[in-house]
Amino acid sequence: MRTLRLTIAYEGTEFHGWQYQPSLPTVQGLLMRECERIFGGAVKIVGASRTDAGVHALRQVASLTTPSAIPAAALARALNALLPLAVRVTDVGEAPAGFDARRSALGKRYAYLIDRGIPADPFLRRYAWHVPVPLDANRMRAALRHLRGKHDFSAFCAAAGRDRSPMCTVRAARVVTRGRWLAIFISADSFLHHMVRNVVGTLVDIGRQAESPEWMAEVRESRDRARAGRTAPAQGLTLVRVRYGDAG
Amino acid sequence: MRTLRLTIAYEGTEFHGWQYQPSLPTVQGLLMRECERIFGGAVKIVGASRTDAGVHALRQVASLTTPSAIPAAALARALNALLPLAVRVTDVGEAPAGFDARRSALGKRYAYLIDRGIPADPFLRRYAWHVPVPLDANRMRAALRHLRGKHDFSAFCAAAGRDRSPMCTVRAARVVTRGRWLAIFISADSFLHHMVRNVVGTLVDIGRQAESPEWMAEVRESRDRARAGRTAPAQGLTLVRVRYGDAG
Repeated sequence: MRTLRLTIAYEGTEFHGWQYQPSLPTVQGLLMRECERIFGGAVKIVGASRTDAGVHALRQVASLTTPSAIPAAALARALNALLPLAVRVTDVGEAPAGFDARRSALGKRYAYLIDRGIPADPFLRRYAWHVPVPLDANRMRAALRHLRGKHDFSAFCAAAGRDRSPMCTVRAARVVTRGRWLAIFISADSFLHHMVRNVVGTLVDIGRQAESPEWMAEVRESRDRARAGRTAPAQGLTLVRVRYGDAG
Repeated sequence: MRTLRLTIAYEGTEFHGWQYQPSLPTVQGLLMRECERIFGGAVKIVGASRTDAGVHALRQVASLTTPSAIPAAALARALNALLPLAVRVTDVGEAPAGFDARRSALGKRYAYLIDRGIPADPFLRRYAWHVPVPLDANRMRAALRHLRGKHDFSAFCAAAGRDRSPMCTVRAARVVTRGRWLAIFISADSFLHHMVRNVVGTLVDIGRQAESPEWMAEVRESRDRARAGRTAPAQGLTLVRVRYGDAG
């Protein structure tokens, strides 16, 4: 058996997320179907991140095991010929035996985009959350300090128990502004379900001065989902990259 | 009667163009319908550019005549509350009596975006033409020299006779590249139907070395639509701005 590593970009607007669901369009489901057409048999595909419906990816990584000897570049071309334009395979490479895109991942980075303009930019509506109130980026930066490091993130987890452990190590968390754009970047070794979107909802309450930056620490320490802000909408979220031991 | 000047941004993907058509979604049709709801009676709206289906606009300009005394800012807010998110009114201001967004325009600028990446960027598919062959930007620049100035552009006109005169003065035409993006900007006092898209189709034949830069001059001088390249797809085209005498 041969293990391949696929890098995939997708616009998530029209998908019911990454994870295979019978009779619903998902990115994993499409990849499985087209790989089965190419290989003539069932394949196993594991994605690093189970992105939700509407969430995008610049560099999702998936592992694929197959006995086929198809050259990696030919597989990429064949998949791109078969997949809809919203999903592109940007790279296919050989992976070491035992490589599992999910379990081998050392960390992931997500970006969350907010459109602060009034009115909203019609070209950003599929890729950003429109927040038409002033947001103080420095308050949001101060709040992010309370997330860095290793903590129990249960307060930001939608579905307690889905994840093996509520402990995550946030390596980097920052806010970047440019004109109407406000982008939040968060890197961590692992993420709980809806964690970034719940952090962003909490952060927006702080940025619009409804709460203090220290509230972020209180919410986190409470480990109580009911304390955090609303779940920010899916379309603002993008999986930016997945980190592996080979610095990939 | 009072004349207002509206500036409008729209993502054209889901519209059958600017121009009103009974029972089809168009930008002008939507604006007319929502203005009629706000004003309680029929309104006349004239757009500077009759963009085709799938074409976008960053700053389309429309004139509106109304006896209403509604404050300009209130009209903008009301329209944005009623219109779909793909259309945003970015400005409403008073205009001099007799202002007609189409006839008063001194010039327009369009941008045409090409995605040269392999594979295509899934986030650009609604906004760019994917051309997966090498394009020589300098050849394209050399070809654009043959368009500047006042010429008969019949060779690039889809529907002879729709426009009053085939004479247009191209003030600026340039190619800008950045990574996978190749953008073509064309400013002129007026444009014929499909002119930018036919110029771009011709330009791509030159960029991919199927034709010489001088072919652009030959095609233009022929005044024969059959000589030019294919019509580039609508989704790559964006109306960038409209110029008026007040430097607006």
